[in-house]
Amino acid sequence: VNRSDGRLPRIGGAARIAVDLLGGDAAPAVVVDGALQALAADPDLQLLLVGPRPAADELLRALTTADRERVDVLAVDRGVGMSDPVAHGADPETTIGAAVVELASSRVAAVVSAGASGATVAAAVMGVGRLAGIRRPALAAILPGVGGPLVLLDVGAGVQVHPTDLVQHAAIGASYARLAAGVAHPRVGLLSVGAEPGKGDKPRRTADSALRLHPLAGAVYIGPVEGNDVVTGARADVVVTDGFTGNVLLKGIEAALAAAPGAFPPTQVPRAAALLGVAGTVVICHGAADGEQMASGVALASRLVAGGIVAQLRDGLRSSAAASKLVEVTP
Amino acid sequence: VNRSDGRLPRIGGAARIAVDLLGGDAAPAVVVDGALQALAADPDLQLLLVGPRPAADELLRALTTADRERVDVLAVDRGVGMSDPVAHGADPETTIGAAVVELASSRVAAVVSAGASGATVAAAVMGVGRLAGIRRPALAAILPGVGGPLVLLDVGAGVQVHPTDLVQHAAIGASYARLAAGVAHPRVGLLSVGAEPGKGDKPRRTADSALRLHPLAGAVYIGPVEGNDVVTGARADVVVTDGFTGNVLLKGIEAALAAAPGAFPPTQVPRAAALLGVAGTVVICHGAADGEQMASGVALASRLVAGGIVAQLRDGLRSSAAASKLVEVTP
Repeated sequence: VNRSDGRLPRIGGAARIAVDLLGGDAAPAVVVDGALQALAADPDLQLLLVGPRPAADELLRALTTADRERVDVLAVDRGVGMSDPVAHGADPETTIGAAVVELASSRVAAVVSAGASGATVAAAVMGVGRLAGIRRPALAAILPGVGGPLVLLDVGAGVQVHPTDLVQHAAIGASYARLAAGVAHPRVGLLSVGAEPGKGDKPRRTADSALRLHPLAGAVYIGPVEGNDVVTGARADVVVTDGFTGNVLLKGIEAALAAAPGAFPPTQVPRAAALLGVAGTVVICHGAADGEQMASGVALASRLVAGGIVAQLRDGLRSSAAASKLVEVTP
Repeated sequence: VNRSDGRLPRIGGAARIAVDLLGGDAAPAVVVDGALQALAADPDLQLLLVGPRPAADELLRALTTADRERVDVLAVDRGVGMSDPVAHGADPETTIGAAVVELASSRVAAVVSAGASGATVAAAVMGVGRLAGIRRPALAAILPGVGGPLVLLDVGAGVQVHPTDLVQHAAIGASYARLAAGVAHPRVGLLSVGAEPGKGDKPRRTADSALRLHPLAGAVYIGPVEGNDVVTGARADVVVTDGFTGNVLLKGIEAALAAAPGAFPPTQVPRAAALLGVAGTVVICHGAADGEQMASGVALASRLVAGGIVAQLRDGLRSSAAASKLVEVTP
């Protein structure tokens, strides 16, 4: 691995973002396209391209001499395949592993990948660790609700259901909605099979009780919500669920909306998910993302860094009694 | 409770169907409307109205003298509310409890209710029992897939995830797709967070292995499918999942499609779910169903009775090695 020049993310200006050139179904071509679109859209953006030299060179050739100053390259030839063990993500000889090493060393301020999400989660958890008060990180998606954007989490960082996770994710989801979706005082709902408090399985009922007893900082818990509420956004701005249900629901709603273009007003909702609860900014794009969606993922990472997402999540966790009461594991 | 005349469902003609007049958010008015629409649509249909005498009389007054011959009344004044304990469903002094008593005594061939689904499931399990080889019954919905109708189950009869249930529901879902959705040789998928065999939680991985080893009768197991596959129907005709995930996904997809009218070609998909795995035909309509949707629920029940759904489910379970190998509880 040919390390980069080691300069720190710039203070007061744009921070540098690492992009995994080998993540995604159509990598590296789509990632190169996305990075070019992101650079064109934001004149302050700086990128560290992590991937094979030829792909990086192709991107550099498409830039003006001035713009080339904004791009560094970390040459890494190996990606993590969809069928590889997720632990390969933590291997610094892979693109995602190398990108997370840069993040852990503060040589970049964020990492963006469209690679296997399990490998990216593993890389981030092992490479930068979890935030204090987080048992398991969550992938948070932003959906175009009828009444405005809505945050859904977890959409696939984990597949287990645990009340501790649900409560902690309510706290970090609220912080994320403020920063990424612009909702000043988010309404937080817990996804269930009915709107009455007694509905759902045992982990959900336990989490519901805890969230009723212990308030969230800067947000209001409104109780159980249903699948349709994730589409309308009428009742909640943040919907918390386990990663299995959230992943399935996100893909179902996205497919239904794709089958019905124009049903929702066009919004600036990024087509990328943020990994919340690790001690660094990590954005995961869909494996089938196109260049525009990759660019929206880079823009999301840039916005999260500028807004200090990690510090905000830390504050939210510290001041949310609900989350701290249920903490079982702190790293 | 004022029992009906006790005649048996007619052999060779239409069988009588019990309708719960007090089930649903706008009961009894919407149920009366739905029953009238169902009677008008099918001249052979016979109904047993289970509910308050004044509501039944209102319906009878709207019929011709000839059509009144097709309707009997079982006067029951008490319904089960959404916040009542589900066990109230098994109380024969409630409309759903009384309707299931009629079903258990073969005085009706099916029960249709838009009441609290938990109470209806409890009433059916306690009143008519489960089929041999079924640990837990499933609610099966039919969705308008892009390529044709698709069966999704369980959509809310239970909220737990157990590999035995997933495998058994694959077998009964296939039988149901043949009869209710007209799919001769259904492709059955297991809902997960990725299409690769190793994806999902432990119960899903166990069920996937069992379904690969032991073939389904008259159907083919195609492996894990994702949330988007439930919308497109491109990969599977039957999608099996736990009742929590299925309920959330169904409501999410329905809301997305409702926000986008015209996205799908109009289909004759019933807006009602069948409770599969109990020893009788039970159809559950949405609590917010309108008269037309209630009528489609009655028509579905009629079609299931005519097709001998219970016998077909029994046959499917008996001849599906996958289901029988994993049976843990048989009633």
